[in-house]
Amino acid sequence: MSGYKSSIAFGVIGLGRFGFALAETLSDNRKEVIVLDNNESKVKQIQDKVQQAFVIDQLDKPTLEEAGIQNCGTVIVCIGEHIEASILTTLNVIELGVPRVIAKAISAEHGRVLQKIGAEVVYPERDHAVRLANSLTTPRALDFINLSNQYAISEIKLTDKLHGKAILELNFRNKFGLNIIAIVRRNKTIVEISPDLQLNTNDLIAVVGTKDSIVKFERYLIS
Amino acid sequence: MSGYKSSIAFGVIGLGRFGFALAETLSDNRKEVIVLDNNESKVKQIQDKVQQAFVIDQLDKPTLEEAGIQNCGTVIVCIGEHIEASILTTLNVIELGVPRVIAKAISAEHGRVLQKIGAEVVYPERDHAVRLANSLTTPRALDFINLSNQYAISEIKLTDKLHGKAILELNFRNKFGLNIIAIVRRNKTIVEISPDLQLNTNDLIAVVGTKDSIVKFERYLIS
Amino acid sequence: MSGYKSSIAFGVIGLGRFGFALAETLSDNRKEVIVLDNNESKVKQIQDKVQQAFVIDQLDKPTLEEAGIQNCGTVIVCIGEHIEASILTTLNVIELGVPRVIAKAISAEHGRVLQKIGAEVVYPERDHAVRLANSLTTPRALDFINLSNQYAISEIKLTDKLHGKAILELNFRNKFGLNIIAIVRRNKTIVEISPDLQLNTNDLIAVVGTKDSIVKFERYLIS
Amino acid sequence: MSGYKSSIAFGVIGLGRFGFALAETLSDNRKEVIVLDNNESKVKQIQDKVQQAFVIDQLDKPTLEEAGIQNCGTVIVCIGEHIEASILTTLNVIELGVPRVIAKAISAEHGRVLQKIGAEVVYPERDHAVRLANSLTTPRALDFINLSNQYAISEIKLTDKLHGKAILELNFRNKFGLNIIAIVRRNKTIVEISPDLQLNTNDLIAVVGTKDSIVKFERYLIS
Amino acid sequence: MSGYKSSIAFGVIGLGRFGFALAETLSDNRKEVIVLDNNESKVKQIQDKVQQAFVIDQLDKPTLEEAGIQNCGTVIVCIGEHIEASILTTLNVIELGVPRVIAKAISAEHGRVLQKIGAEVVYPERDHAVRLANSLTTPRALDFINLSNQYAISEIKLTDKLHGKAILELNFRNKFGLNIIAIVRRNKTIVEISPDLQLNTNDLIAVVGTKDSIVKFERYLIS
Amino acid sequence: MSGYKSSIAFGVIGLGRFGFALAETLSDNRKEVIVLDNNESKVKQIQDKVQQAFVIDQLDKPTLEEAGIQNCGTVIVCIGEHIEASILTTLNVIELGVPRVIAKAISAEHGRVLQKIGAEVVYPERDHAVRLANSLTTPRALDFINLSNQYAISEIKLTDKLHGKAILELNFRNKFGLNIIAIVRRNKTIVEISPDLQLNTNDLIAVVGTKDSIVKFERYLIS
Amino acid sequence: MSGYKSSIAFGVIGLGRFGFALAETLSDNRKEVIVLDNNESKVKQIQDKVQQAFVIDQLDKPTLEEAGIQNCGTVIVCIGEHIEASILTTLNVIELGVPRVIAKAISAEHGRVLQKIGAEVVYPERDHAVRLANSLTTPRALDFINLSNQYAISEIKLTDKLHGKAILELNFRNKFGLNIIAIVRRNKTIVEISPDLQLNTNDLIAVVGTKDSIVKFERYLIS
Amino acid sequence: MSGYKSSIAFGVIGLGRFGFALAETLSDNRKEVIVLDNNESKVKQIQDKVQQAFVIDQLDKPTLEEAGIQNCGTVIVCIGEHIEASILTTLNVIELGVPRVIAKAISAEHGRVLQKIGAEVVYPERDHAVRLANSLTTPRALDFINLSNQYAISEIKLTDKLHGKAILELNFRNKFGLNIIAIVRRNKTIVEISPDLQLNTNDLIAVVGTKDSIVKFERYLIS
Repeated sequence: MSGYKSSIAFGVIGLGRFGFALAETLSDNRKEVIVLDNNESKVKQIQDKVQQAFVIDQLDKPTLEEAGIQNCGTVIVCIGEHIEASILTTLNVIELGVPRVIAKAISAEHGRVLQKIGAEVVYPERDHAVRLANSLTTPRALDFINLSNQYAISEIKLTDKLHGKAILELNFRNKFGLNIIAIVRRNKTIVEISPDLQLNTNDLIAVVGTKDSIVKFERYLIS
Repeated sequence: MSGYKSSIAFGVIGLGRFGFALAETLSDNRKEVIVLDNNESKVKQIQDKVQQAFVIDQLDKPTLEEAGIQNCGTVIVCIGEHIEASILTTLNVIELGVPRVIAKAISAEHGRVLQKIGAEVVYPERDHAVRLANSLTTPRALDFINLSNQYAISEIKLTDKLHGKAILELNFRNKFGLNIIAIVRRNKTIVEISPDLQLNTNDLIAVVGTKDSIVKFERYLIS
Repeated sequence: MSGYKSSIAFGVIGLGRFGFALAETLSDNRKEVIVLDNNESKVKQIQDKVQQAFVIDQLDKPTLEEAGIQNCGTVIVCIGEHIEASILTTLNVIELGVPRVIAKAISAEHGRVLQKIGAEVVYPERDHAVRLANSLTTPRALDFINLSNQYAISEIKLTDKLHGKAILELNFRNKFGLNIIAIVRRNKTIVEISPDLQLNTNDLIAVVGTKDSIVKFERYLIS
Repeated sequence: MSGYKSSIAFGVIGLGRFGFALAETLSDNRKEVIVLDNNESKVKQIQDKVQQAFVIDQLDKPTLEEAGIQNCGTVIVCIGEHIEASILTTLNVIELGVPRVIAKAISAEHGRVLQKIGAEVVYPERDHAVRLANSLTTPRALDFINLSNQYAISEIKLTDKLHGKAILELNFRNKFGLNIIAIVRRNKTIVEISPDLQLNTNDLIAVVGTKDSIVKFERYLIS
Repeated sequence: MSGYKSSIAFGVIGLGRFGFALAETLSDNRKEVIVLDNNESKVKQIQDKVQQAFVIDQLDKPTLEEAGIQNCGTVIVCIGEHIEASILTTLNVIELGVPRVIAKAISAEHGRVLQKIGAEVVYPERDHAVRLANSLTTPRALDFINLSNQYAISEIKLTDKLHGKAILELNFRNKFGLNIIAIVRRNKTIVEISPDLQLNTNDLIAVVGTKDSIVKFERYLIS
Repeated sequence: MSGYKSSIAFGVIGLGRFGFALAETLSDNRKEVIVLDNNESKVKQIQDKVQQAFVIDQLDKPTLEEAGIQNCGTVIVCIGEHIEASILTTLNVIELGVPRVIAKAISAEHGRVLQKIGAEVVYPERDHAVRLANSLTTPRALDFINLSNQYAISEIKLTDKLHGKAILELNFRNKFGLNIIAIVRRNKTIVEISPDLQLNTNDLIAVVGTKDSIVKFERYLIS
Repeated sequence: MSGYKSSIAFGVIGLGRFGFALAETLSDNRKEVIVLDNNESKVKQIQDKVQQAFVIDQLDKPTLEEAGIQNCGTVIVCIGEHIEASILTTLNVIELGVPRVIAKAISAEHGRVLQKIGAEVVYPERDHAVRLANSLTTPRALDFINLSNQYAISEIKLTDKLHGKAILELNFRNKFGLNIIAIVRRNKTIVEISPDLQLNTNDLIAVVGTKDSIVKFERYLIS
Repeated sequence: MSGYKSSIAFGVIGLGRFGFALAETLSDNRKEVIVLDNNESKVKQIQDKVQQAFVIDQLDKPTLEEAGIQNCGTVIVCIGEHIEASILTTLNVIELGVPRVIAKAISAEHGRVLQKIGAEVVYPERDHAVRLANSLTTPRALDFINLSNQYAISEIKLTDKLHGKAILELNFRNKFGLNIIAIVRRNKTIVEISPDLQLNTNDLIAVVGTKDSIVKFERYLIS
């Protein structure tokens, strides 16, 4: 096991489903990634995609140091189910001086301990559930960005309600209180929206406006 | 246990972290929700927030029917870790005639079986990891919507690089190849962007454009 | 481990009692057989009787391909007790393009999932129990073929009731509503039945007719 | 728990898949059946179909007697996986004086012990595997009865090879060395075979003859 | 592992407390002994005292034969706790043709099965408890031989009741109805009993007579 | 649970095979017995045969006292397999002031601890194995009493070697160096041995003498 | 369960050996003590000695509040072996606003987490081992107080070396560099030390001085 | 493994938290230490600090002798949780002739057995809990030595109550009934106490006197 030295590298500790996908995507984004897990087969599956991959038995400081964790700029502790290991490992990583430490929590209490010892906390399952619940609530909305309590951007799939109508003709902004930002039509994306552009069934349109306006627009589409 | 009858209700089977947060958020969004789990304490924790909450020992068809699952418009099977229970329950829910069945999968193989028997599939941990990895890769971007392979909408936090400069003065669209959709400044959201608006440090701006342009803009901000 | 290529070969996955006896009998019938199990001692016991025998740890596609499962004409998945492994392995074998995939199920639900993902399903313990129950119900019948809901062929052991009587003399067909197809007497089989043939105690006779007639004939024998 | 007294009743001890299906089929055949198992839910599932169903904790003689096992004419011990329980229970049933005791074995050694203490032995999984292997070996044969080492009766599905040909015209008996016993055509069963009957594709025909003749006839069908 | 051939040898299968002490004592008595156990450390402890000692994983016939069990004159199966292993191993040893097979049983049912398959049965714990109970009941008796329902030989420790008295003087035979067979006094054993021999406190005397006389004599000693 | 008070009673703690048989035999010998075990079914099996039988969960002093153990004259601790419980219980019984405490040990070390804390120690399995080994070594000897290192009493079954010969004629004492103490012939026991008594095949004779003489005599019988 | 309100009370969470002895001693010192444990038998053992004793299943905030933990002035979390429960409970107690929270740690890492979340930390086993090691190193010293790195107070048992000598005569302070603080002689304690007091063998004397002087004095005593 | 020979060495058996800290501190005190544990990683952690460190599988006499335990002057058996191993090992060490054997006990019963077989007994967790309880009861007292039931030495942290006052001026001895032995002020220790020395807030003072006086003094400080 030889150490790794790059303050721009990411360290991912724990290759469960969350850690594995995280390391894989960071690597797809051409980041330097170093991974640690006690499961040899998990490490083998990912070792060709990352800078360094270590099979380790324990997560004490000497082991973490030997792997070069202290040289990473950001370390994500992806140990969820074993709260004890999650907390002690996060402590060790912080004490090794890593500038940014993010840790996965599985409960609010777990999260508060992680925060008290100095980590940023993520709750992947809870957060993803919230996203899914929101998208189920607004079934025409494929994705959205929360700008504030009042405003949002939403990507919405059109029904045949507006088919063949031009934006100008519809008086879209006044009628719905929304600005159209982009239109995606059969893999083609239009970001310069001309007022005489005709909307089609199944167009995806990105709009910005108040959440109330977005909900009303959705209801109109399926009414 | 008395059945429940409302085709607009949501059924959530399994109150792990994912199912619990899902049921809670659906309920926060004022949807009718019916939940089932074998863990009495989990059911107790949520029962005041949902229409109906059942403690059940098994997930065979008679039990599901007694709870009224067949009357839901959408059922989400949130049993991840026990692949066998996840598959058999999903089969039972589909055979009860529920119009939309969504099931949580924990591996690609698991997902393919769920699809073959007729369910939509979600991978919460994998998908959330991808989101986190992307946001770590573009640290100024707080959120984003993927419009296509090429285009995206991104919510970006400004550095002091553009402080005090008006959008017109910057020739923003030409310089960065991006349209500004909205600006969030101290809880105030501006969606009608006037060209002489001055940008400030820590403004959140929502932009639309190619992903390459977004990445270049980010690099510029932290250069 | 080197792959195996013969579209007329049989693949047997799982060497429990069912899979073991299946592989053994196929081999006794001079078929090419390839077996896979995670139990080394089971594989050793059968390896001299089959073309190829592999000890494997997991049943993912790469492992199945390395063993050459994709080249078999028929694969029987004999994993009963572990429903999850049974389903995922069956899926993998089907996705490898094997023309005929048969899978052992241990419950009706299990069987329906296997069918939905594209397998033929067998229930060895249930089916054998039905055979035994039927033979206990008709204790003189040693074996039978169900032709339809109404008709069957049955192999029956005679009592001394008909001893020494010729078929003609008995007016067998009219009296019992049955045709005699064959008589087995002390290891000698007679398939050309002459009307003056005398029946003996302990003769096995194969008859064809309605099930009702067969039951009545049996009752007559032991009356 | 009140005893049961009928020497024509069947006792089924153990409600695994084998015992359950056995008890169910005996009951479908209108036999008096008494069942014993330690699993309350299994007993509940079957209790409406049988004369008596007992949930018991142990299988010692007093318990068996209280249930009336000693009054049955035939008892089938369907405890396979726990060899110790299988042997001791079988011993107890025999010592209670039951005239016919059949026990399920899971290995040859297990079977020999059961035989030595006085039981008839069945091997459901092995025997069913042999049947399946044989039917896979002769894929046109749906079922068969072994008459002797040389002769058999076989139910065969015709291909289009003989479509539209009359039995006489074919000179069937001479050409194939087989007698046609019955023809099943779309749920109709013909047992009086007239020589000018025409055979059709997908007819099921039952034939009797030497095994060699049957194999040759099959090969002819698919040649 | 090389076989062993001597029909006068003893085979001991199982080195628990019973088997170990058995093999050790047989060996102390200068008998040829061959032992088998799956516990390497047990086998090592005894290997220098016996002819052959094998560490084995299973007790099937090929393994037993390779060790030469079939050549022993007597085999003792000392597997008590695992009834299944005890029965199957005993069956295998008997089927290998060993002339005398003794097996340890832990319950009456277990013992009856062993007997039915052809073994002699011993119950060490039960039998030793009976001996201890008997000696606790007659606390002056150190050991005894049951000759019949009525008569016994008993070794008894004297109290000071008879100290200094000669046998003749006591009129021992008439008074107690017992014959003195031997006297053990400070490691010296006297078997030729002269009538004028004086008895001492703590002498051990062996007497023969009816059990009633022995009990009465004991009561006299402690009265 | 009400205490028991009788200094002549026996206490038996632990109803394994050894303790159960011990309590049963003491009771058969008409002793007052009090038993304790944590297994309710064991206690039920024996309660009708003993004075008092308690189901107890722990073996601390208050529990032992409540059962009246401190009033027994002799207590036998029959807990073998759990050395810790055996030692602590024995300590408690001794500290309660019971005059005689006997404890079952399963190893020499275990025995030495029991002795150090003040108990007498028995090793049932080891001791019974020694008895069996000795009887296998001298197959004509049915039972024996060890008088000293040199002398023994032995009960021996005669072969036809001495059939029909009178003791005088044989010059038995000189020839074999043994005194005949008793002869058992078809359930009749002769303790007054007349010199002209004829010995018969299958007579059991009890002899006293040196062990060497006994062995030589046995060899003579089977030569 | 009814809450408890007294800011001078002590709360002890966890009744292992450490917590039990702690609660018992606090109670012996006439402090108000409230204890919580999930082991009913432990709680019963102590309930008569403390103000309030609760059997609880979990250690979440509502449970702790219901027991009145928030009203204690000092809470000691005596959960050692389960690091996760130790940390989460300590967090909950701190968040309930208890002024002083002490927690038992079993490793340095565990201790650092407890400190970071705001608890004082004790290591009972480690600290007691250090005391024992020190007393083994200085075998005449029965107890000691560490004043600083250099100075200590030590209670020392005299040998016969100084027997009968007066303190003045010995010139004790100059000779050994130590002040005598107290002398304990047969349960009598002398704190006003007169210079002509004679020292005796087995006197315990308390001295203050440098650690080096204490060690030298000890060596002198046993030289 | 080579034996160790030094009657002044300490043997530490068991490297749990207690044994580990004990061995470490003995070693820090420059004693020769030999340690034994079955946990390889524990042994590795300490091997550089001690004379000899052995990884052992069992604790029988031959193993202990091979390690040279019989040559130690003092052996501490630090096996707490496994009472059986603790007792048997302690017995073995004593039987090897070690002059002083100390053993850790986890209950009063455990301790009494250890004492009966000849060991000194320590109860680390109980004893440390008592210390902590005492110090919580007298919160200004940092440490103390119990001289007798009545007298103690105590190290007390001053409040501002006596700040700036000279000892003489306070008439300390009369007022509080205590002698000041030493004063620790910012790492400086004063053992020659001059009457005009001024006391300061946060001075640690060591006093000797009756326990009542100490308690009263403490109350005065915080009044």
